[in-house]
Amino acid sequence: MKNTRIVLAARPDGEPADGDFRMESSSTPTLGRGELLLRTIYLSLDPYMRGRMNAARSYVDPVELGAVMVGATVSEVVESADDAFAPGDVVLAGSGWQEFAVATASQVRRLDPSVAPITTALGVLGMPGFTAYAGVTAIGKPKRGETLVVAAATGPVGATVGQIASALGARTVGIVGGAAKEAVARRFGFDAVIDRKVGELGEALDAAAPDGIDVYFENVGGAVWDAVLPRLNTYARVPVCGLIATLNGPAATSGPAHSPALMRTVLTKSLTIRGFIQDEFRESLTTSFAADMTRWVRDGQVTYLEDITSGLANAPKVFRGMLRGENLGKTIIQVGEDPTIRDRGAR
Amino acid sequence: MKNTRIVLAARPDGEPADGDFRMESSSTPTLGRGELLLRTIYLSLDPYMRGRMNAARSYVDPVELGAVMVGATVSEVVESADDAFAPGDVVLAGSGWQEFAVATASQVRRLDPSVAPITTALGVLGMPGFTAYAGVTAIGKPKRGETLVVAAATGPVGATVGQIASALGARTVGIVGGAAKEAVARRFGFDAVIDRKVGELGEALDAAAPDGIDVYFENVGGAVWDAVLPRLNTYARVPVCGLIATLNGPAATSGPAHSPALMRTVLTKSLTIRGFIQDEFRESLTTSFAADMTRWVRDGQVTYLEDITSGLANAPKVFRGMLRGENLGKTIIQVGEDPTIRDRGAR
Repeated sequence: MKNTRIVLAARPDGEPADGDFRMESSSTPTLGRGELLLRTIYLSLDPYMRGRMNAARSYVDPVELGAVMVGATVSEVVESADDAFAPGDVVLAGSGWQEFAVATASQVRRLDPSVAPITTALGVLGMPGFTAYAGVTAIGKPKRGETLVVAAATGPVGATVGQIASALGARTVGIVGGAAKEAVARRFGFDAVIDRKVGELGEALDAAAPDGIDVYFENVGGAVWDAVLPRLNTYARVPVCGLIATLNGPAATSGPAHSPALMRTVLTKSLTIRGFIQDEFRESLTTSFAADMTRWVRDGQVTYLEDITSGLANAPKVFRGMLRGENLGKTIIQVGEDPTIRDRGAR
Repeated sequence: MKNTRIVLAARPDGEPADGDFRMESSSTPTLGRGELLLRTIYLSLDPYMRGRMNAARSYVDPVELGAVMVGATVSEVVESADDAFAPGDVVLAGSGWQEFAVATASQVRRLDPSVAPITTALGVLGMPGFTAYAGVTAIGKPKRGETLVVAAATGPVGATVGQIASALGARTVGIVGGAAKEAVARRFGFDAVIDRKVGELGEALDAAAPDGIDVYFENVGGAVWDAVLPRLNTYARVPVCGLIATLNGPAATSGPAHSPALMRTVLTKSLTIRGFIQDEFRESLTTSFAADMTRWVRDGQVTYLEDITSGLANAPKVFRGMLRGENLGKTIIQVGEDPTIRDRGAR
């Protein structure tokens, strides 16, 4: 069997270009003792991958030139040298942008297709959902009646943030780019939706959040942050899980930190700004997340939207579109046949 | 009796000038029902007063033009229309930059001169000491073996921050401006002292904090913050209680918040940046502060330094010098005779 994979060919300067990726063929990896051979069904595309394409170390090491692009996958076990797994099992894995990969049992988590569609392990019941859950419940902590603002409000993190905050009794304001997304955000139940491409963002925030902003869930950065900052209330909390607006910019970990407006507002408003990645909360929140989110999804308290494109070869193009905000919901590439759909069809 | 007072004559543009203050004479205020007539013994000068001279509201209202400059005082009760106080009692009050003021009993706190010198109510046992205590114990939370950095390390907040962190088992690095202060900071027990006027601050921090920085107690802002930011460890905490380096700058609460280097570091290092003013912790920490700090001062675990100048007329000049970092320790103006020293002399 042949393995098709996409490797990092060059480090992007700004927005990734076609030439930064290279599609390759190799032979399927062979199993070592206790390993599993995995066939990729779905590949998750996430903004953090853009950071991994840079040479600079962020919270994890960069992808090496010539190495397979990283990424979470939903995969099917094809061969197993571990008694705990059998061919046909569906697992959450980290195979990256390729058709086949090997992994040990400890590197995968078995999925139960009867609980929820297996794609949700990459979205609302996976990393984006957990990021939203951890940021809202452990850092943002909106109280009943407080106002929470989140941008990229139709994305897998933003939409979930809004719905969790609503479940906790907060007033929610979602910011989106474009009329199509505005309609979608309303379906997600935001109390107010702002299209940042229409009018002046600050005035729109004044209208949508007349009592000021108590929690700003930061997943975009840039101009939205500029407009939110002066509207934060005393003791406001700002969980920071991503800065997609600046991802394609120059690597900005050096250079002056000096930002008098920001630090002065931190001081005068007693703000809390708190960066986080989901790993920090894995131990403390995994159990409550699984219980709460499964219940919310089942009850319809949290809904979700998936943007699925077929074909691994489309991953670079879809990834670039996602960075430009062209996706609607959780971005997923279907790499191979989904056996749970095949099985359902056979019933 | 005449009351001499210093009022805000004009709002400063940058560093306060002589003409921004005006010394006036008025008649001594008369007592209403339940009020106390207070004679100022000591006036505290603190960096926050510079912010109050601006027209912009920060966390409290600005001083009005023509109004007495605000400030904490140690005062003696001269007349009392409240049974709980008698002439001769010494109290902590907020009389501002003047010789006499009236207050109600609820606006003052009785001081016991037998516990500690009454000036300490303005410093190590007062607002600066409490600010240090709250920032270190409630936000910075240095663990044993972690590294804490603080600037203005001979000031009443910085020196106390370092000593509390040492008491908690942290390695402490103090940053000062000038050789004289370097020697004083060493006496306060910092594990390493950096003179920011010698050499390159970043290199000095690398040498003084070879394992990186876990807590940066921010009380200065500006160039020190720029040098500290890239040296913060993952999960570092940054309590922000003041930005003296930018106090004389243009009012910076408007303008772009956009600061990619800062926000990206917040994200990649999972930083916590937390502004605070002491009021927030008054209810939760006043009791433990009084117990801990009184014990630490008595045991010599926390020492302090006071910079006392006689004469209310000198307040503007001394205040301006403090903003330039010319003070050594807690800045106090002796406005009138100290009865506790007079009594001690008579024994």
